[in-house]
Amino acid sequence: MTEPAYVAVDWGTSSFRLWLVDRAGEVLAERRSDEGMLAAARAGFPAVLQAHLSAVEAPAHLPVLVCGMAGAKTGWVEAGYVDTPAPLAAVLKQAARVPGERDIRILPGIAQREESAPDVMRGEETQLLGALGLEAGSEALVCMPGTHSKWVRVKNGIVERFSTFMTGELFSAVSRETILSLAIAGAEEAEDVASFKAAVKSAYAAPAFAANLLFTARSRQLLFGGTPAVARETLSGTLIGAELAAGLSGTVPKAGVTLIASGRLAALYRYAFDAVSITVQPIDADEAVRRGLSMAAAAIWTK
Amino acid sequence: MTEPAYVAVDWGTSSFRLWLVDRAGEVLAERRSDEGMLAAARAGFPAVLQAHLSAVEAPAHLPVLVCGMAGAKTGWVEAGYVDTPAPLAAVLKQAARVPGERDIRILPGIAQREESAPDVMRGEETQLLGALGLEAGSEALVCMPGTHSKWVRVKNGIVERFSTFMTGELFSAVSRETILSLAIAGAEEAEDVASFKAAVKSAYAAPAFAANLLFTARSRQLLFGGTPAVARETLSGTLIGAELAAGLSGTVPKAGVTLIASGRLAALYRYAFDAVSITVQPIDADEAVRRGLSMAAAAIWTK
Repeated sequence: MTEPAYVAVDWGTSSFRLWLVDRAGEVLAERRSDEGMLAAARAGFPAVLQAHLSAVEAPAHLPVLVCGMAGAKTGWVEAGYVDTPAPLAAVLKQAARVPGERDIRILPGIAQREESAPDVMRGEETQLLGALGLEAGSEALVCMPGTHSKWVRVKNGIVERFSTFMTGELFSAVSRETILSLAIAGAEEAEDVASFKAAVKSAYAAPAFAANLLFTARSRQLLFGGTPAVARETLSGTLIGAELAAGLSGTVPKAGVTLIASGRLAALYRYAFDAVSITVQPIDADEAVRRGLSMAAAAIWTK
Repeated sequence: MTEPAYVAVDWGTSSFRLWLVDRAGEVLAERRSDEGMLAAARAGFPAVLQAHLSAVEAPAHLPVLVCGMAGAKTGWVEAGYVDTPAPLAAVLKQAARVPGERDIRILPGIAQREESAPDVMRGEETQLLGALGLEAGSEALVCMPGTHSKWVRVKNGIVERFSTFMTGELFSAVSRETILSLAIAGAEEAEDVASFKAAVKSAYAAPAFAANLLFTARSRQLLFGGTPAVARETLSGTLIGAELAAGLSGTVPKAGVTLIASGRLAALYRYAFDAVSITVQPIDADEAVRRGLSMAAAAIWTK
């Protein structure tokens, strides 16, 4: 087995992932847990990290590179922001050093300091780095779905503009805390792709009506019957369709939208883009963040 | 004091209101409580009603007319629906009789049985009756804000179309169950009318971006500071602005929009309509429902 060269950590709001990586970028060991920023703020960031480092038998001198919410004001050590227009190369250069013996650094986020469209990201900049590289020549429109979906315009390796949509969090709040909780009770996700696509199309065509289309998940059941699965797809499709209407409202590059996502979200958004006839270039989000961390680690420690 | 002629009850999902009324339509006594459909389904509808009837010393023979969610399938006695296009006069004729000695009737709701735009109302039809009368000559566009806001087109006393928006319930769910709960913590309502109007305008101009504009309540605070009050107004104004964009997307009558609302909601929506330069004809919702119940009682019991 080759020697480990560094440890890469993606430390989000609610999840923690760690990779032990060799000089060639190969993963030697991996850890995943739900000790995200919120849990780690209680348990203590150093203790959480050290437990995982011990579990993969990381040597004491091995450097650690972190991206994500651990760098937020409410995280471990505040890592600041690179402001838009933000060269992805600048992200590599502004990592914050965590005080202590081990060389631990946290990558900064990106901030859009516009009065009319303030926005922030933390973690997605590293995914962008891994997905597009430092010198992505042409213009890319990137969709990164999630709790807080990001839509990003990148040109020549520079993040020009981005917008955050609370789509995932809205889905969670609406499905649990409104009358729609009754309509969708018992439904599993992705049971009815046709209903999902129909809801995406409706909301994409009339996004102003999103709060009305959501209610039809309930009224359709009252008047015409219909399963909880259909209601759930209506809810999910409506929120994603409205997001697409906004995200796709500007110029869409010829190659389509770069979709950085993993697992069920990747599948769901591919259905959604298909429903509105937009081509996507899919990139796995897990791979992207690991590759981004590798690029950053190489830049920081192999100068 | 004149003799009571009937009892009028507005029995909603979460509130109960009762009026003891004389032949001339004058209110002799009033009761308000939070024993709405949800609470009454547990305590028993007859017991809740009888307690309030006893409190106002209603004679045993006095008839009772009810509107609202008590007539839902999950309510007391299902009162069915009048289907669109629904003459308001038909609502008077289809009251459901509650079995028992006292003459108790529940007014039906209105259903829009369209596959592409299914919708239902219960209680608002009685407000419409009271606000517009049976023979409202010209065309009215009516906004009835609330947990589930209704936008209704009425022409010559006929409810032609309507749409429900989950605005109030979205506000409640988003303010409690998302990251915005942090941004607005401690804020009271209607503290900052200018911020509210600005948010209404933004969402009205770009309703597809509602889920993004919501997030700016958080990111603006992170990047530029700003009070919880401003964040709360952004949340509220964004949801209402998107509702207005949809509700006002068709023809708006010359006289403007008929706004049926009471109290803080009436004030809030007047600010919102003002922000997008739309004239409103305000009608008090409490008065409207009482007047509607009186008209129905007169039609049912003084034939």
